[in-house]
Amino acid sequence: MSTSIFYHAGCPVCVSAEHDIINLIGADNVEIVHIGEDKSRIAEAEQAGVKSVPALVTPTKNVLHLNFGASIADVKA
Amino acid sequence: MSTSIFYHAGCPVCVSAEHDIINLIGADNVEIVHIGEDKSRIAEAEQAGVKSVPALVTPTKNVLHLNFGASIADVKA
Repeated sequence: MSTSIFYHAGCPVCVSAEHDIINLIGADNVEIVHIGEDKSRIAEAEQAGVKSVPALVTPTKNVLHLNFGASIADVKA
Repeated sequence: MSTSIFYHAGCPVCVSAEHDIINLIGADNVEIVHIGEDKSRIAEAEQAGVKSVPALVTPTKNVLHLNFGASIADVKA
């Protein structure tokens, strides 16, 4: 099965959504990326169309913004 | 496995997210509810904490608003 990527920044909304996504699709099916800690991957997230976190990029490259924790601009700051 | 509920209103953002969710968690694990057509279930969605569609209510009753298609107020109008 193809893997989704879950981008987050450690915010409470992010942590809650991370638990939900892992419960729903399984930890093996999603890569968790903390772009607050790993800023080298912010550009990749933006390229994928991520505007805010938490967000899930599906295997088909659609972006699902899950609720709203922080904008990418906030994460960069 | 417990079932999630996906609330939508037929909007393009809703349809796209519906496809993503079915691909990710499987059609058997999610009930699809079109609250634009079945307005009797709008109150249930609001009670669950749904503010806009598309939204997924998880088996643990968390609400994940997926991108933004329309507010509940828009659906009621």
